[in-house]
Amino acid sequence: MPPIYAAIDLGGTKVTCALASADGAILAERSIPTASQDGPDAVLARIAALAADLSRETGATPQAAGMGVPGLVDRAKGATLFLPNLVTQWRGVEVARILGAHLGCPIYLLNDVRIATLGEMTFGHGSKTGTMVFFAIGTGIGGGVVIDGRLRLGELGAAGELGHQTILPDGPLCGCGNHGCLEALASGPAIAAEGARLLHSGMAPKLYELAQGRIGAVTPTLMAAAAEAGDEAVRDVLVRAATYIGIGAANMVTALHPDLVVLGGGVSTIGPLLLDTVRETVLRRVRMFPVDHVAIRNSALSDKAGLYGGVALAMRAGEL
Amino acid sequence: MPPIYAAIDLGGTKVTCALASADGAILAERSIPTASQDGPDAVLARIAALAADLSRETGATPQAAGMGVPGLVDRAKGATLFLPNLVTQWRGVEVARILGAHLGCPIYLLNDVRIATLGEMTFGHGSKTGTMVFFAIGTGIGGGVVIDGRLRLGELGAAGELGHQTILPDGPLCGCGNHGCLEALASGPAIAAEGARLLHSGMAPKLYELAQGRIGAVTPTLMAAAAEAGDEAVRDVLVRAATYIGIGAANMVTALHPDLVVLGGGVSTIGPLLLDTVRETVLRRVRMFPVDHVAIRNSALSDKAGLYGGVALAMRAGEL
Repeated sequence: MPPIYAAIDLGGTKVTCALASADGAILAERSIPTASQDGPDAVLARIAALAADLSRETGATPQAAGMGVPGLVDRAKGATLFLPNLVTQWRGVEVARILGAHLGCPIYLLNDVRIATLGEMTFGHGSKTGTMVFFAIGTGIGGGVVIDGRLRLGELGAAGELGHQTILPDGPLCGCGNHGCLEALASGPAIAAEGARLLHSGMAPKLYELAQGRIGAVTPTLMAAAAEAGDEAVRDVLVRAATYIGIGAANMVTALHPDLVVLGGGVSTIGPLLLDTVRETVLRRVRMFPVDHVAIRNSALSDKAGLYGGVALAMRAGEL
Repeated sequence: MPPIYAAIDLGGTKVTCALASADGAILAERSIPTASQDGPDAVLARIAALAADLSRETGATPQAAGMGVPGLVDRAKGATLFLPNLVTQWRGVEVARILGAHLGCPIYLLNDVRIATLGEMTFGHGSKTGTMVFFAIGTGIGGGVVIDGRLRLGELGAAGELGHQTILPDGPLCGCGNHGCLEALASGPAIAAEGARLLHSGMAPKLYELAQGRIGAVTPTLMAAAAEAGDEAVRDVLVRAATYIGIGAANMVTALHPDLVVLGGGVSTIGPLLLDTVRETVLRRVRMFPVDHVAIRNSALSDKAGLYGGVALAMRAGEL
């Protein structure tokens, strides 16, 4: 039987676990609530039980597991350093040791967005290119950088925080403490907040209709539909956010001259307006060398880039 | 006799040539005017004669030469692609072939700021670190990126144009055609222009005195002296420019988590105000991971980084 790998994607709300073969074929996949208020030991025990269930159902035993976590890790120790969105923040939890004892295989940890970048470079658009910049645009904006086929990590696995480039020096306060970060200007919540501002203004009748007047129903996806249906003010908000993302992408293209820029995360899939605007902005902003051959694409793996990255990490941890 | 290498630094105004040993000891060095209006053949013949003079005087024959040029090159062909500041712009000049025939050794070409980065990584502060970001701040702002000991070039040797990050999306027009580039905000001419604005305003009495009222005499160095002597408005200009450089540095630290950021070029040596402000800005802007251990220093090679880079390129071209 060919080798099987486990992928674990630990989020603030849910944990997803999958078993896959080395070519990226997923044999089984399931999610459970994280419920981090129970503490790290309980969460890890549930993850172990979930992986055991998948193993039993498929008859496949993983050789190794790759796990993405929302925060900083000590890769050498296989321990979490700081997961800001989980209860207790998981400082110094020896995940590889604890989970490894349950699963009976090596466990490798990586930041969730770096692992998604690894997924895209292994099983997605990046598999044919040497140098790639990856933006994950969702509740926050994360990223990752691949140089000559190697994921740039830095000693904390923290390199690639592309959502925390300063785009507007005097811009709004970001969750990280800086002002004017790309994340503060163009993440899902930043875009939706602008939609909420417009909802009762009379400038967004289609959005009002689609959201049935409820501010809580406004999402970037709904806003894209409203813009498509004719709400110029909503379209303006989306173009502005996409232009900021384009500036962030242009800065990385200027610095690194990659072959490929990939947009992933939930916000990246709202429609062609976002991708087109990012492309136009990169062409307009990068003038020092020709960039028409730098491909700018949506992720080939959509919301599964993190899971595929777990498989890649399990397979390739030693090469990182 | 240990091997000897030639370094050639081709600028818009002057050409400098040096002979050096593999440990970076310079045996001889001399500059002549570029006089690019004579055309590439004449300029290259003069460079060859200069190198021959140095060889004869030292009794040393170079094994290879590394040459920095102000623009884009085709490294594989050893040809210039576009040198915007030289008369005729040197499109497709086969410098390695022409100069190699004169000198009787291989000639390697690289963009002038990438070659300075190579100098700093080989003979300067970068020699002990794996990942370095280099800003060359002078008439323009150039840069270079070293990842895990390898200079990032991209196919045109154009990666590392850190002066063309967008810092203010609606900022002033840059020479490259983009708006709000770091270069348009914090290069020597950008700083001096702000000094010139203040000169007759009554807000810069010390600068007025030092420049003897002549706008043409205002330089960033003179402005640093005026700020030191008490001109608060001049100090404000320098702090603002340094803050922009700090934002550019912070963006690169956030993206790449280097061990080291180096500031080179003439403007980098105007005094501690610049370096201190860049340091403070990086600490204030990068909040996603601890950066107090990221060293931020002035170039160890000062205005010779390009020449040392030529020596390094002659020695190491095959490894790039």
